Formats: sequence, C-alpha cells, structure tokens
Amino acid sequence: MTQATIAYADSHTEDHLTELIELVSIPSISTLREHIPDVREAAQWVGDQMVDIGLEDVRIFATQKHPVVFGQWTKAGPDAPTVLVYGHYDVQPADPLDEWRTEPFEPTIQDGNLYARGASDDKGQLFVHLKSVQSYFETAGALPVNMKFMIEGEEEIGSPNLGDFIDDHRERLSADVALVSDSSILAPDQPSIVYGLRGLAYTEVVVTGPDHDLHSGSFGGGVRNPANALAGIIAGLKDSDGRITVPGFYDNVRLDAEERETLAKVPFDEGGFRREVGVEKLWGEATYTTLERITGRPTLDVNGIWGGFTGEGAKTVIPSRAAAKISMRLVPDQDPERVIRIFSEYVEELAPPEVQVEVRTHAGAVPVLVDRDTPAIEAAMTAYERGFGRAPAFTREGGTIPVVGMFAAKLGIPTVLMGFGLPDDRLHSPNEKFNIDNFYKGIHTSIYFLNALAANE
Amino acid sequence: MTQATIAYADSHTEDHLTELIELVSIPSISTLREHIPDVREAAQWVGDQMVDIGLEDVRIFATQKHPVVFGQWTKAGPDAPTVLVYGHYDVQPADPLDEWRTEPFEPTIQDGNLYARGASDDKGQLFVHLKSVQSYFETAGALPVNMKFMIEGEEEIGSPNLGDFIDDHRERLSADVALVSDSSILAPDQPSIVYGLRGLAYTEVVVTGPDHDLHSGSFGGGVRNPANALAGIIAGLKDSDGRITVPGFYDNVRLDAEERETLAKVPFDEGGFRREVGVEKLWGEATYTTLERITGRPTLDVNGIWGGFTGEGAKTVIPSRAAAKISMRLVPDQDPERVIRIFSEYVEELAPPEVQVEVRTHAGAVPVLVDRDTPAIEAAMTAYERGFGRAPAFTREGGTIPVVGMFAAKLGIPTVLMGFGLPDDRLHSPNEKFNIDNFYKGIHTSIYFLNALAANE
Repeated sequence: MTQATIAYADSHTEDHLTELIELVSIPSISTLREHIPDVREAAQWVGDQMVDIGLEDVRIFATQKHPVVFGQWTKAGPDAPTVLVYGHYDVQPADPLDEWRTEPFEPTIQDGNLYARGASDDKGQLFVHLKSVQSYFETAGALPVNMKFMIEGEEEIGSPNLGDFIDDHRERLSADVALVSDSSILAPDQPSIVYGLRGLAYTEVVVTGPDHDLHSGSFGGGVRNPANALAGIIAGLKDSDGRITVPGFYDNVRLDAEERETLAKVPFDEGGFRREVGVEKLWGEATYTTLERITGRPTLDVNGIWGGFTGEGAKTVIPSRAAAKISMRLVPDQDPERVIRIFSEYVEELAPPEVQVEVRTHAGAVPVLVDRDTPAIEAAMTAYERGFGRAPAFTREGGTIPVVGMFAAKLGIPTVLMGFGLPDDRLHSPNEKFNIDNFYKGIHTSIYFLNALAANE
Repeated sequence: MTQATIAYADSHTEDHLTELIELVSIPSISTLREHIPDVREAAQWVGDQMVDIGLEDVRIFATQKHPVVFGQWTKAGPDAPTVLVYGHYDVQPADPLDEWRTEPFEPTIQDGNLYARGASDDKGQLFVHLKSVQSYFETAGALPVNMKFMIEGEEEIGSPNLGDFIDDHRERLSADVALVSDSSILAPDQPSIVYGLRGLAYTEVVVTGPDHDLHSGSFGGGVRNPANALAGIIAGLKDSDGRITVPGFYDNVRLDAEERETLAKVPFDEGGFRREVGVEKLWGEATYTTLERITGRPTLDVNGIWGGFTGEGAKTVIPSRAAAKISMRLVPDQDPERVIRIFSEYVEELAPPEVQVEVRTHAGAVPVLVDRDTPAIEAAMTAYERGFGRAPAFTREGGTIPVVGMFAAKLGIPTVLMGFGLPDDRLHSPNEKFNIDNFYKGIHTSIYFLNALAANE
C-alpha cells in the first residue's frame, strides 16, 4: 500500500511545488498590523487546501488576534492512534528588504531551493503533511491513523492565544501524539530528531530621561543620556565570559553530564555553522561547546535597539528616550514568567536613578525536553531512515516552538519534532529558503511515519 | 541719530516679525537630502532681503554643498571699523514630529513667542542685524561702521565647507571684528556675553558581526551579537563618576580656579535648567557644578542608536549590524582631530574581537575662548545695557559655533558672541521658539552696538 502512496507523491511533485509557491506568496506577517488581511488570506488558503485534499470538519476559528485552521479525518477506527499535526501559516517580517537577492514574497527557485519568506518556517514544512495525507487519500482512500490538523497564525509573535484555544477545544484536539515539523535536520544526508527546544522570554526595555530631545551643546554634561544609560544596562546583563548576570538566572538550567555526552556525539558541523553565520570567530559562554551554547544553554540577545537621531548626517541631540528589544532563550527547567520577573528587577537595579526604566513583555514560552523512548519516536526513526536513507541522530534545537510545551501541559501528549529544514535555511533572515529535495523527502518521511505508527501501536 | 533709528525699528516691529515668519517657514534642513531645494530657497530669500534693505555686492556663493550668502556696505570710510556678521539660514531636522504642539514650519505666535524650527537657531537671531542695518539705512541713509554679512547654510552639519570658503575669500571677508548672534542670554532680564564655546567631535560607530540577520533561536548563544557589543563599547566610554575613559581625553582641558570662580558668580538658574530638561534629578561629572558641566567641561553623548528589528511586536533576530552616533563637546584646548583619533583607537580597543568596528567622522569644530578685554566687547556691554536695561554677565556656552574658531585662525579677528536666545528656546528639540520681545530688544541692542563701536574706535 505504502508503495502506491509514495508513487503518487513522486508523480505529483510539480503540482505540490506549485501549490506551495502559492502559499508562500502570501505575506502573512503576523506581527505587523498592515498585514492582517494577508494573514486572513493565508488561513483561508490553508482551510481550502484541507477541504480540497479530503480532510473533514474543516473550520477557521477566530481568536483574539489571528485565526486557527482546523481539519481532521478520524475514520481509522478507535484502535488506531490519533496524530495531531501542528504548524503555523504566519511568517516573520521580511526586513531588511535590501538584503534579499529575490523578492521575499515572489518565491524563486534557484539551485534546488525555493527562496521566499516562510518557505522553510513553516509553510513548506507544514505542507509536507498535507501532501502526505493527500497521497494516502488518492491511493488508499483512507489514512492508516486518525489525524487532526491545527495550523495557527501567531507562532512568530509567541502564540499568545493558542493556549486559550487549546483549553477551549481540548476534546476536539484530543490525540495520542503531536507531530510538528518546524525545525531542521543536521545536514541533507544526516536526518535528526529534535528532543529539546529552548523557551523564550521576549521583553522591551524603554529608558526615559529628559521629557523632550535636548540640544547636546546646551545641555550635554548636565543630564543623564537615556541612550548611554540603556547601553550601560545592556552591557551589565552579561559578563566577559558570556555569562548572563541576572541573579538566579541559571538556577533551573538542566544540562547534565550524560546529555553533554549525547550532544558531544552529534555530528555538528562547526565550520559550516561559522560560515553560515558569516563571521571569522564564533563566541559564547565559556566552557561550553558551540552546539551546547546554541541548544542546551540559555541566551540573552538584543534583537533591536533604537533612540535619538538615526537619519543620515549629524544631529546633535540628547534623546529623550531609548529602547531595546531584549529576548532570552530558555532551557529546561527555566520558567519564562520567573525569568521575566528577575530580569525586570535586575534591569531596574542596573538603571541609574536619573532615568525611568520600563520593561514590557512581548512573549514567553516554556522550554521543552521530550522523551526519546516512545512508539512515536520509534516510528519517526523508521520513517527518517526510509525517507532519507540514513538513521536519524538525536539533537536539541536552539529555537522555540511554544506549542510543544502546551501539548504536554494541556493535552498530556508527547510531541514528535520531525524537521525537514536545513541549518542554512536563513529562518527570520533575508534569503530564507527551503530545500526542494527535502520537501519531497519530507513527504516520503511523513507517509512512512503514519504507516509505521499504525503498525507499531 | 540713534534715537531716530531706534524709533524706526519700533514703528516697524510688525513688518519685521512678518518677514521673519516668512523666513522660518522655509524648511531649510541642511542634513537631509530631500530638503536641498528648501535650503536653496532660504539662501535666495536671505540674499533678496539683503538687496531689499540696501546692502551692496550681494552674492550667493555655491560651495560643495549649501551656498553662502554674502552682502556688504563699506562706505563708512577707511577709519571706521569693519564688522563681519555671521549667521546661518539652515536648521536642524524637526523630528520627532509628533512631539511638536504646532507645525515646525508653520510659525505660530503664542504667549509672546514665535514657535518654529529655526526661530531662535539661527534665523531669528541673524535677522536682528539685518533689521538693525535697515533701520540705519532708512533713517540715516548710512551705517556708523562698515559691515559685511556672511550667512551660511551648513552650520547644523558642522560647517564642512566654510573653512574653504573663508580661505578663498579672505580679502572679501577682511574685518576688524566678527559679530555672531547664535546663542542665549541667561534670562529675559539678565543679558550675558558668551566668552567661551565648546567644540565638537561627531562620530558614527558601526559594529558588524554576522553577515546577515540571524534567527536568535538557531544561532543565539554561539555568536557575538553586534548590538550587545555596541552597548558594551558605549558603556565602556564613561565611568560611574561620569568621567570619559578615553585615555588622554582630558589632557588639554583648561578650566582653572580663576575661571571656576567667574562661573560660580554667574546667576545660573539650576532649578529652571532642571525643569527645562524635564527630569527629577540632574547628573554629570563628579566634583563639577552643572554650569561647569554644560559649558566648561567636555562631554560624550549618544545622539542616536539603531540596529535590528525596531518595529512593533517581537522579531527574534540577532542583527548583523548596530550603530550609534556619538559626539563629544570639546573645551579649550582640546583638538577635534586628536580627540577623534584617540576616541577611535579606544573604541577599537573596547570592541570584542568577534566583531568589526568602524568609526566614521561627521564633523569637528575647535572650542573657543575669546578675549574679554577689547573695544568690541566694551561696545557690546554698552549695547546690552541700553538694549536690555541691565549690564550683561559673562558666561560660557555649551554649544558649538564652528565659525568662531575659523575667524580667529583664518582672519585673525576676535568674535563678539551677542546672543538673543533664551535657555528654554528648545534649540534642536520639538517646540523651538524665539522670544518676540528679545527679537525687538535684539534689534535695539544691535543698533546701539554699531553706534558704540563707531564711537569707541
């Protein structure tokens, strides 16, 4: 049976790619108000696609912000396992636009890759499973397992309404395992299964001094400059060893000797990573390897900073205000709420008394470690081995997928993180791409996974 | 004779104000490319005005960037002194626009003030002398001294071409004394003569890390973040006492005990200064008074900072680049070129080895101290006393007027800094204004000055 399904997928690669190009053409940037209509359009597109391929009970649920698209097929019977596929149809902003070699929302095929914002994160990856399901329906008229799809539109802004949505639809979403493809494998010839994800605490620190911009000649020297003060606060958040100085920050960090041994065995390409970053020298927390730093250790980064005159030339002002977006990637068992609280307290402490400082919270997500010893993970290993011709490695991921923590807490189910991206996909950056070969291999892997899962249970 | 001239000025106040409103309506922002036509228009307006009031040899000289307007009247005879009036018709950018209560280029009269960008800095102040000259021509048909006007359009970008212009026109500009009205008096009832000006060294520090913006999840922890690095550099430029840490920075600073005594006697309104700034607490270099900090001591301020994602919401990037405009106000005998050199070296030293740092120079100007014991200063004292009804105090100014150093070095002449602004004029800030009463008193003072200067020599 599986062979016919695989054959169907192989004879429709062009159709599948054409459809994916349609989806990534929609600039569904969830963080920018002006793109609300595009976000709606992408949701509608995903819903229509679900109906087209044969999913049932398709609905687009409104939330406080962007809708969730749901569809299912539950006719495999009560004894067959139920898989809940999660993905997100929203994307990151495309700026800086001038660094794109192609238009971010005019998908372009070059060297076996599809270049577009959202190609890998996450439209291309979520689409894999829709095409796998379609291939089953077209060849077998049925799926080997029960399936539910929940595709959201707020992942790139931290999934603020997804928790409530899951609470409100617990029955509808009930499943045995969640399947999420929103991560990368180690290399084209080295598939991998992610068993750890970092969490997120995203803040905005606003420093206010004078109640208006001042002439730096008439006032300079006599008043605390909020931009200088902000720089001092940021500089005070890390020491010269790259350690974060927020008191208590590392209290709940769990990365034991056994795990460090596992990570040490991962065939991580440090040279490739360095070249992908585009720097001469990497840097990070002392006494940890690069792979540990980017997956198993928490971080603190300025994501944006602004204040005063930023046009061309010279304007001699002392700005009234300066601000920075500062986010921390968290690892088990750090708690985002606690981290934001101790971060805010420390920022207050670092701020000189002549300025006001305000810390706003944009998003939080819990870090996750998944159990590697389950039937679903076994099925995923089989599927990768057949789809990519090589057994997958186990690794952690540095990124954050807020929903994984919610699935554990709210639905009590494990998640299989079945990534099809590559480390050089430039997620969130200019020139994001999705490897087209991985797209097709991904559809194979998804087909094999559903089959193996049905057989395993 | 002077009485008739004063009477003429008094009977034409409305005309004079109407004309000034015309001039400040022109958005002649010298630092922004899109305002080049407006800068040209302002130059033409000033040239036309010179012709209208009776100046001769009026010419608009092109430079590498913005033109210099010249006009003169030299029929007072070879024994009469020659005064070279300097002013600038260009203005600072108006942003942040949303903090203006009126439109910056739709001059508005409120509470005896004229609100508009450039009203005080420097259109209103330079216009005082044109109206003084006009009053003489209309009543006496002549001036008591020879006069030359040089009105430039690049002051707000650091007068990059004025040095060359003066070199090229040394003969044309030859004079006995320069007269510059581009500063403030201490209070409406306390005129003052500025005898010291700070210089300027304006730089832009650009820090580059990764060759493109990175996903902070996939890469965070493994790479030096240029925005964090920039913050560290800025924080390293001052210690907790507010002292600038650039090695050798204070080497040539001259503020001796005698001068500190002079400054201690200035009726400086610290409470008013604090309220004007709009902060609860002032701050500056330890062991110095506020007046010393803002006039006699050098400074280092961030004028603008930017990098990464600065839109609304959350974008999880590590920026490829971050930059800051950092300027230093200098005092005698600091040399801008040397300061920029040692600053750049120190910034390089502070920068971590995993980023590239580049220091660009926007502008430099030498600091100035003028001799208080000259016939011209004596004439200015007399003029202020008659114009404002009170003897002027001597004080230093925190701002920079690049031309004053050039007059000393290139033409070998002293400058009288005859300000008519007030400390709360909000130069370079939203809601800049010029006190209309000071405008009229300024015209009186200019008339008295020319008369006293002719009598003194």
